Amino acid sequence: MMATALGIDIGGTDLRVALIGDGGKVLSHARTATAASAGPDAVITQIVALAETLVHPLGSPNPDGIGIGSPGPLDADRGLVQSPPTLAGWHDVPLAEAIADRLKLPTALDNDGHVAALGEWRYGAARGATTFAYVTISTGIGGGIVVDGRMLRGEGGRAGHVGHMVTTDAPVRCVCGNLGCWEALASGTALARAARQAVTQAPHSLLARLATDRPADGRLVGEAARAGDAVALALLEAEARHIAAGLTSLIHLLSPQRIVIGGGLSALLDLMQPTIEAEVARRTMAVFHGVDIVAAELGLATGVIGAAALILAPDRVTRFAPRSHEEKVSP
Amino acid sequence: MMATALGIDIGGTDLRVALIGDGGKVLSHARTATAASAGPDAVITQIVALAETLVHPLGSPNPDGIGIGSPGPLDADRGLVQSPPTLAGWHDVPLAEAIADRLKLPTALDNDGHVAALGEWRYGAARGATTFAYVTISTGIGGGIVVDGRMLRGEGGRAGHVGHMVTTDAPVRCVCGNLGCWEALASGTALARAARQAVTQAPHSLLARLATDRPADGRLVGEAARAGDAVALALLEAEARHIAAGLTSLIHLLSPQRIVIGGGLSALLDLMQPTIEAEVARRTMAVFHGVDIVAAELGLATGVIGAAALILAPDRVTRFAPRSHEEKVSP
Repeated sequence: MMATALGIDIGGTDLRVALIGDGGKVLSHARTATAASAGPDAVITQIVALAETLVHPLGSPNPDGIGIGSPGPLDADRGLVQSPPTLAGWHDVPLAEAIADRLKLPTALDNDGHVAALGEWRYGAARGATTFAYVTISTGIGGGIVVDGRMLRGEGGRAGHVGHMVTTDAPVRCVCGNLGCWEALASGTALARAARQAVTQAPHSLLARLATDRPADGRLVGEAARAGDAVALALLEAEARHIAAGLTSLIHLLSPQRIVIGGGLSALLDLMQPTIEAEVARRTMAVFHGVDIVAAELGLATGVIGAAALILAPDRVTRFAPRSHEEKVSP
Repeated sequence: MMATALGIDIGGTDLRVALIGDGGKVLSHARTATAASAGPDAVITQIVALAETLVHPLGSPNPDGIGIGSPGPLDADRGLVQSPPTLAGWHDVPLAEAIADRLKLPTALDNDGHVAALGEWRYGAARGATTFAYVTISTGIGGGIVVDGRMLRGEGGRAGHVGHMVTTDAPVRCVCGNLGCWEALASGTALARAARQAVTQAPHSLLARLATDRPADGRLVGEAARAGDAVALALLEAEARHIAAGLTSLIHLLSPQRIVIGGGLSALLDLMQPTIEAEVARRTMAVFHGVDIVAAELGLATGVIGAAALILAPDRVTRFAPRSHEEKVSP
């Protein structure tokens, strides 16, 4: 009998739920816009509604459990979502218990960075690695880190906030409020900011012409760069150098076999890879040369697949049982 | 019967050997100047000579084994010292086997940063912690990292090169050859460089007057600062800010309970602590506030105590048996 699990990916924009089978295969999925400003009860109702469209039509057997990836900060061991900046009104929400109770299945919770790293580790670009860093570069920079075959959790399960490593003296304010964060210079948001400046300074560039009816974001920079636009290529060159600074820190600290790049900007990794690799080689000591830098493989499904992996192929997680089940487990 | 182990600390300047008992107690010790330019055979001969002064007088029982802390890079699993910049002529030296064979005791090897972290974890300032970073600030910056109760090893056992995290855009060349390293701005060497500049610019300061017959290094800066010299206090203020940048990266990445500062500059931690703590609080997200920043407790004995802990209270190490023992271990 095939093992299956329900994976739930709570994004600030999209809420995704999928039924995942062996090997991380997406058996069915559903998506809606996250009611991010409506508070936790509204989102829990959305999750239950989406899940029921996937689970009930299948009949028995039920999935083996439910995994949830949520924006942090959260406490995975207590199943609590603490106060994510992207979810209004969420404070110490016992999400794992709530979902276990409503859907009557054992439920595990972890933050979106850890969950995506787990998905890529079990089913994607980090398969077979014992030490790697997963770095997602999109609105911000997040991630998850596996060293010597275990996901780093740290105090409160908060390890892996890679985007807030200090990599620069540049006076660019990060969304976290601080200066010097890697995310402030190397995120997709930072690239879009640089692109808007470039459009003003080079109004005749292809990038500027494309930007007349669309926002000058990472996607547009990629499009212009692929068409050979020098302005867009220079933006990606600078972005690649900013990315390489943080990867240099991760490599010296962790001695990984591999770095896996996910998130929206990973779609442009092929354009940036030569500069990233040259910069990392220039900035790391010789014994650290040869670390593979590769794109994530699971794409938009990373979140739901990684969440399901909390049940199907976990590292170390706490599962919350539905409270209506009166089973006692003897110690 | 008390467990004992021989701890060997190979420094670029001093070679220390000590017999260590339960609780990390130093039972006896010996020291000589490391024959750092004379190649591995000369140093191995020094180690054996020092060890025999400690072990033979005791008679039986023998120590349970030998732990060695050596400058890296090295491969702990293979017992090889690869090519430390501070030891001339060392290339892939099978040091653990050589010492096991000469002293007829099981022997384990690890790099000096990991060994010092292990010593502080078992017997010093990191006792009881499950996630902490040990950072030694002296000529360079090194360390060892424990997350979720395990020392991070990474590929080739090279995790924990904290000094080469990128923390700055300042064009200061690191000894590793690269730009941007934490060590290049925050090491004792960097503080001494800043002190020499300050002496030139402020020739009437107490620091400058003290520096007429002694080198303007960290020790002298500390002495002048304790006497209230404004120039020295400003140097330590800047040093504290440089230290805080790297600690901020470590905190976001690892979510530690504690940071333990060792090395020569830890003697000045009390002078820098208010600025370090204020800077770290300013630069880290609120959920990471409250990480303890404390001085190492084992002082100059950290190296030998930590090395002995590879035998007495190891995390995960490979032990090399003397080859003259013909015992076979069945798989």
